[in-house]
Amino acid sequence: MDVANHQFQLAARPVGLPKATDWQYAENLVPEPGDDEVLVKILYISLDPAMRGWMNDGRSYIAPVGIGEVMRALAAGQVIASNHPALAVGDHVTGLLGVQEYAIANGNAVMKVDPQLAPLPVYLGTLGMPGMTAYFGLLDIGRPSEGDTVVVSCAAGAVGGVAGQIAKLKGCRVVGIAGGAEKCRYVVEELGFDAGIDYKGEDVGAALREHCPGGIDVYFDNVGGEILDAVLANLARNARVVICGAISQYNAIDGMRGPSNYMSLLVNHASMTGFVVSDYGARYAEGGREMAEWLAAGKLKSREDIAEGFDTFPDTLLRLFKGENTGKLVLKL
Amino acid sequence: MDVANHQFQLAARPVGLPKATDWQYAENLVPEPGDDEVLVKILYISLDPAMRGWMNDGRSYIAPVGIGEVMRALAAGQVIASNHPALAVGDHVTGLLGVQEYAIANGNAVMKVDPQLAPLPVYLGTLGMPGMTAYFGLLDIGRPSEGDTVVVSCAAGAVGGVAGQIAKLKGCRVVGIAGGAEKCRYVVEELGFDAGIDYKGEDVGAALREHCPGGIDVYFDNVGGEILDAVLANLARNARVVICGAISQYNAIDGMRGPSNYMSLLVNHASMTGFVVSDYGARYAEGGREMAEWLAAGKLKSREDIAEGFDTFPDTLLRLFKGENTGKLVLKL
Repeated sequence: MDVANHQFQLAARPVGLPKATDWQYAENLVPEPGDDEVLVKILYISLDPAMRGWMNDGRSYIAPVGIGEVMRALAAGQVIASNHPALAVGDHVTGLLGVQEYAIANGNAVMKVDPQLAPLPVYLGTLGMPGMTAYFGLLDIGRPSEGDTVVVSCAAGAVGGVAGQIAKLKGCRVVGIAGGAEKCRYVVEELGFDAGIDYKGEDVGAALREHCPGGIDVYFDNVGGEILDAVLANLARNARVVICGAISQYNAIDGMRGPSNYMSLLVNHASMTGFVVSDYGARYAEGGREMAEWLAAGKLKSREDIAEGFDTFPDTLLRLFKGENTGKLVLKL
Repeated sequence: MDVANHQFQLAARPVGLPKATDWQYAENLVPEPGDDEVLVKILYISLDPAMRGWMNDGRSYIAPVGIGEVMRALAAGQVIASNHPALAVGDHVTGLLGVQEYAIANGNAVMKVDPQLAPLPVYLGTLGMPGMTAYFGLLDIGRPSEGDTVVVSCAAGAVGGVAGQIAKLKGCRVVGIAGGAEKCRYVVEELGFDAGIDYKGEDVGAALREHCPGGIDVYFDNVGGEILDAVLANLARNARVVICGAISQYNAIDGMRGPSNYMSLLVNHASMTGFVVSDYGARYAEGGREMAEWLAAGKLKSREDIAEGFDTFPDTLLRLFKGENTGKLVLKL
């Protein structure tokens, strides 16, 4: 196919925040799909905190992106050529399609989605990886009971916003931690949280003591660092801390900082449990079904923060780590 | 009663290791027991890492020892006067009797023990608080299955030695971490562990990779610090980390160090759960019965490290934090 495909390839392993020279902007020709493969024209690229981890070398839950390889990313697009029996030209799909304009993928490795039921970006957010992350992390690991006090960090983000809303659906008191008054207003007024704590403007420990006088039963952590320590200092007995991410630490140059208050787990007979969403791959259908019902019934709100222009990818990704997005950050091509 | 009682009272809150001036050696008269109380002549005082935490101010699972109060300690002794219907003069008891020669205690707050069934120090060790700590921490939180790889730190100590032996009884491969070649020999040759790692003489991370090639399923942690981080870097999927203590951090002057490798919990869908033995108070009888059966059947070995002389208490306590004891450290009066 005589069409140019543009890609962002990983040029170097970042130290701290990814910088322009960590990327190689490449142009090549769109290839033809092989057996069982489809060619997808990418319409939206998902920007997720996990991408920072994929850029690092070393053992993790998934192999690192190799130097010179297309940067790994979830994306949504439209099939424009198909050698797979279950996918036709015109179908919409999501998958790990990479930071590029066109992708070749095995038809079994993408998921067909219906843009009539929900806009494509929602399949990268509430009905996609972030939504499943919130759903299984909160329900399977956090195990909230009615009346529990649940605290969520990155509460205005794609995962945190959904986790907090699900906790509300389960009858919990929900406190969100987010950066800035506007995000706090959003999580309370639009997402229905009971309270918001602005970590940029408030003493998080004091605010937690005020909003969670009986202690914190469930903490859904996306940030790590000082906020995790502040929460640990305010756990209730038998608390469950869900380790979903640690965005405050992903770009640390002098190594990760561990939670120095972890002995609060001992004092409170509490647990801290980690997960990645793919641990629940066998149950995505179950989660997707319930989330879609909640969305359709208006019980769950989905918000997408849509940036535009393929070439803006390096800067748009940084918005995540600067906390500049509200809701699911996606790049529209 | 016209007999002198000597006590070690807490004179100041220690910074770092407790020093001589943190103690007040006091002499007063042995008081008479009131209603339901007994007077106990103390024969053995238990020295436990938890005592260091009791000396600090601040919220914990138990109130701090007040300045000027007798230092809190578990102890075993003989009833020499009783106003309690269930306890007679001559009975032997254990309880939180304090660092003193004679103690008044409510008869309901001590436990009657039989020195014919096991020597008194064993009731402060394998059949006492350390034994119950090992039993419930390993079985209820660690949940070892046959074939699991279990790692125990402070493996030659009162809690670790028992935890590792119970894991062996459950069919696990057990690796102990201890300080020095002699302690490693002890845990392997006398306690039956599969391997010992000398953290003073070996690279713990490299040794863990060698002895636990399939990763660590259960880690019973008594030390925290660098060893906890080395274990976290070598977890198996669905691993359970039992937070029993963090003796490497108890005397830290510049604050606790948190486990910087805690994101390994996320990568491995693993958990880290804390507890204190009193969480299982309602089940002590169950644990004590099974432990006594194992002891009687020779399936469990109990070792006590018996220091002598009430006046040596301040120095004897420091032996714990210098790792100088093997087995349960008690002070014989």
